[in-house]
Amino acid sequence: MHPVAGIRLGTACAGIKVTDRRDLVVIELGEGGACAAVFTRNAFCAAPVVVAKNHLLSNAPRYLLINTGNANAGTGEAGITAANMCCDKLADLAGCTSTEVLPFSTGVIGEPLPVDSIVAGLPAALENLSADGWDDAAHGIMTTDTIPKGVSRQFELNGQTVTMTGIVKGAGMIRPDMATMLAFVMTDVPVSQNVLQKCLKDAVAQSFNRITVDGDTSTNDAALLISTSQADMPRIERAEGDTYDAFAEVVCEIFELLAQAVIRDAEGVTKFITVDVTAGASEQECLDVAYTVAHSPLVKTAFFASDPNWGRILAAVGRAGIKGLDVNAVAIYLEDVCIVSDGGRAPDYTEARGQAVMDQTDISVRIDLGRGDASARVWTSDLSYDYVRINAEYRT
Amino acid sequence: MHPVAGIRLGTACAGIKVTDRRDLVVIELGEGGACAAVFTRNAFCAAPVVVAKNHLLSNAPRYLLINTGNANAGTGEAGITAANMCCDKLADLAGCTSTEVLPFSTGVIGEPLPVDSIVAGLPAALENLSADGWDDAAHGIMTTDTIPKGVSRQFELNGQTVTMTGIVKGAGMIRPDMATMLAFVMTDVPVSQNVLQKCLKDAVAQSFNRITVDGDTSTNDAALLISTSQADMPRIERAEGDTYDAFAEVVCEIFELLAQAVIRDAEGVTKFITVDVTAGASEQECLDVAYTVAHSPLVKTAFFASDPNWGRILAAVGRAGIKGLDVNAVAIYLEDVCIVSDGGRAPDYTEARGQAVMDQTDISVRIDLGRGDASARVWTSDLSYDYVRINAEYRT
Repeated sequence: MHPVAGIRLGTACAGIKVTDRRDLVVIELGEGGACAAVFTRNAFCAAPVVVAKNHLLSNAPRYLLINTGNANAGTGEAGITAANMCCDKLADLAGCTSTEVLPFSTGVIGEPLPVDSIVAGLPAALENLSADGWDDAAHGIMTTDTIPKGVSRQFELNGQTVTMTGIVKGAGMIRPDMATMLAFVMTDVPVSQNVLQKCLKDAVAQSFNRITVDGDTSTNDAALLISTSQADMPRIERAEGDTYDAFAEVVCEIFELLAQAVIRDAEGVTKFITVDVTAGASEQECLDVAYTVAHSPLVKTAFFASDPNWGRILAAVGRAGIKGLDVNAVAIYLEDVCIVSDGGRAPDYTEARGQAVMDQTDISVRIDLGRGDASARVWTSDLSYDYVRINAEYRT
Repeated sequence: MHPVAGIRLGTACAGIKVTDRRDLVVIELGEGGACAAVFTRNAFCAAPVVVAKNHLLSNAPRYLLINTGNANAGTGEAGITAANMCCDKLADLAGCTSTEVLPFSTGVIGEPLPVDSIVAGLPAALENLSADGWDDAAHGIMTTDTIPKGVSRQFELNGQTVTMTGIVKGAGMIRPDMATMLAFVMTDVPVSQNVLQKCLKDAVAQSFNRITVDGDTSTNDAALLISTSQADMPRIERAEGDTYDAFAEVVCEIFELLAQAVIRDAEGVTKFITVDVTAGASEQECLDVAYTVAHSPLVKTAFFASDPNWGRILAAVGRAGIKGLDVNAVAIYLEDVCIVSDGGRAPDYTEARGQAVMDQTDISVRIDLGRGDASARVWTSDLSYDYVRINAEYRT
């Protein structure tokens, strides 16, 4: 992954849940940058989400402090105090103010944050701060993730070579609603705060807000887009024009790839499934159908079994609550194979053609509602024995 | 199970999906009765649902024809024709009109109904019609069910001993919406059609419409409440008064027990979970919270693991979309053990107390929203390896 001018990353093993695991990440941001952020809409949002939102109101952040092994969620007032103590300590060590530190936590919900362990790990993380720390940081934010996930691009903008690099963690409790578990994307392109926030919001809407593993929105979701402003070019001050469009296109690409990476590493995943709903009356009804299919345990177990049991897709479409749906106008496809038309099995569908698609690892499902011009796409995973095992054994 | 005057039941092995399995059930209803019915609201409702609804418009039914092994759903016009052919043939053999036969199918979606096999099985089913055929019929309607499910009561009404007996099938694709997979409840109490329909609708609202295994509403759901009117007492003509109330109470009890029996036999079930949401602002928001908890794969795998990972319940409550929820007013209980209060872990909660509850087979979860007088209760099952296995292997 390409370093981003103005960014240094450090990790440490703080023994938060288990020993000898990189569970603490500090990201240092140069002065003069801008930070956009979106957070979970879960009503029981975690203490670090509350604290990070407050700190963002005061000033631009200088440090991100991320721990795994404990979500500091469902911890009430004590959790807020604990998150603030960690910020205070990092601010002391780094010579900034506490509000210039944004805390992020991920892990088990409901247990007290081990502040002492985190504080004890801070000096080591600060000591190994490095512009090349991206791989280590991608490892350091993992929980049930099996692989570190990051995307990096260098591209031309206004005649300059600029950089955008991002990392993400997340594999379960994934039905982001404004953001996914934790994502941090950095660029040296100078962008004003307002424009950066709009750009982030637009990108998240078509990336992290379009994926689901299990329908469970986390208490700790957060996605950040940070500009260090260190590239030598005029600041992007408006969300329009060629420069903004070119920048936003890369942001969207990176966020989409990071979101897809979460699904490709979903808990117990064996299939990567793209659900496209087309010809709907509105984007919302397309999303309703897409998520009903993507959340159906029966559809997901059929994918796991590579079983072209398309009746389950049909049943899921039928229960999606679309008012006045004419089932005879609906067509359902597995890749290019039409499986359903005129309310039943398509005339030229054969089990062999369905099986050939289901044997693939990447599978596209398309549902044509036959009633309008809107469309929506979501990505999801299958439901396997390993999903159950991972979540049954999570705290053991 | 007590016979119901006016009802005879016959079964046969028709070889619909596999050989030597009772997969065909015929239920004969005496003349002069009344039949109430509710059906799935899945837009892709099955052909037998369409045909049964049409036939109910014409006249009271004399025969119910039920097959397993094939749902005759997602079969378009050909499915309607197939269902009608089966009704025609039974009407021929039994000496009634085709519209006096109601067809019901359950099994795999999307495959053509094997009409010839069903027709060939009809004589055997008619031949063994018997008032004592309830146990065989309860077996004959099973698919992934592991045990036959029925409830029977004799009770006093207006000084007469009357009877109510019902059977149900269903274990997966269970999130009934007006009804569950297939339920047939019969009584000799004389009740007018309108009153019977209201009574059924009320009972279903608090029973089959309050259970979920996997959130997947079937294409074939149907629940019937049939009065043979053979008890020697005045017909109940109004949905009020002591006699109606006493009758409706037994109906509700039987439907609730049948609905609970579906959950106790849910695919892969190891836990029977009651979710109570209390102190809500409306019944709907209580149901939204209850179903969000009941559908959460993470909550369900925690129950499977007997793991008091209550943070997942808290996260599910938080993502239920309740506007203006004050999380500090929410309290969550496992049985009598308060686990969450004031936005975090309750002061006297211990892992040992939570573990003691989770070790039980029957577990009650109560969520007090702390903002009103409404409440709602739903029943659900856990998510186990066997749920995945059963649904991955369903068509093999």
